[in-house]
Amino acid sequence: MDPVAKKKALRLLTYGLCVATSRSDEGPAAGTINWISQSSFTPPLVMVAIKLDTGLHRAVSASRIFAIHIVGKSQKELATAFFRGAQPSQGKLNGYEIETGQTGAPLLLAPPAWFECRVVHEVPGGDHTIFVGEVVDAGVRSDEDALTLRETGFAYGG
Amino acid sequence: MDPVAKKKALRLLTYGLCVATSRSDEGPAAGTINWISQSSFTPPLVMVAIKLDTGLHRAVSASRIFAIHIVGKSQKELATAFFRGAQPSQGKLNGYEIETGQTGAPLLLAPPAWFECRVVHEVPGGDHTIFVGEVVDAGVRSDEDALTLRETGFAYGG
Repeated sequence: MDPVAKKKALRLLTYGLCVATSRSDEGPAAGTINWISQSSFTPPLVMVAIKLDTGLHRAVSASRIFAIHIVGKSQKELATAFFRGAQPSQGKLNGYEIETGQTGAPLLLAPPAWFECRVVHEVPGGDHTIFVGEVVDAGVRSDEDALTLRETGFAYGG
Repeated sequence: MDPVAKKKALRLLTYGLCVATSRSDEGPAAGTINWISQSSFTPPLVMVAIKLDTGLHRAVSASRIFAIHIVGKSQKELATAFFRGAQPSQGKLNGYEIETGQTGAPLLLAPPAWFECRVVHEVPGGDHTIFVGEVVDAGVRSDEDALTLRETGFAYGG
């Protein structure tokens, strides 16, 4: 296999940006992710690939719950803020206001929409784990459209 | 859970359009899909959710191989042509020229890029199955950018 072609072809997959959060006994966890897709209508399932050896991975694996926030068109800064994982301080997460969702996951108030999931399958594979989650709650906070990975100039894939 | 919020939040996930192909003893299979993401760098893995009770699902489940083609910006017609599954005729697939990949999957010549996979996990869940595939070959045929689902006005999710 030509590694250059492999990288180029895989980078042509289209992605948005999301902030994933979770909570375990160690506290809140979070990270910016883009490897996510819905995987069923009934029940509503999503599949998310989360990098091994991250606080987010440890928290989702332990707690079996996570929340996904859609990063809005104008919110590139929000995505960047969560590249470094969760930094809770003074009741905020990485400087952003939160509330607690029905699963116990921290819900950011800034993103245009979010949904919370309970893990139904965990599939190991390579340097990430695929968590399949059933969507158990969701909310919309504004009508802002989603930021795409392409628009940011970032790349994660290939 | 508010079903309207759930639908709206899930539809804010960003997708591209791909044509997936496979081949079993019954012949070629194909379909337009958008529930796909990479799921590992090393080895290179992708996760694809394929609808139950389709020819594509039967073929991937039986053969354990599939190919993914990126639909180009100018190729909305290509995506539409594969909504109806595989219609082989006169050495073509749904009117499009093909060659045979190393896995035996039909490879379309028109799309800007493709990759071929061997299934390493199959995860049942709801009305689709998640196939996790290891990328074993890939090619780039042009430098056309990818068509996004948002640009087409189509929706598949929610």
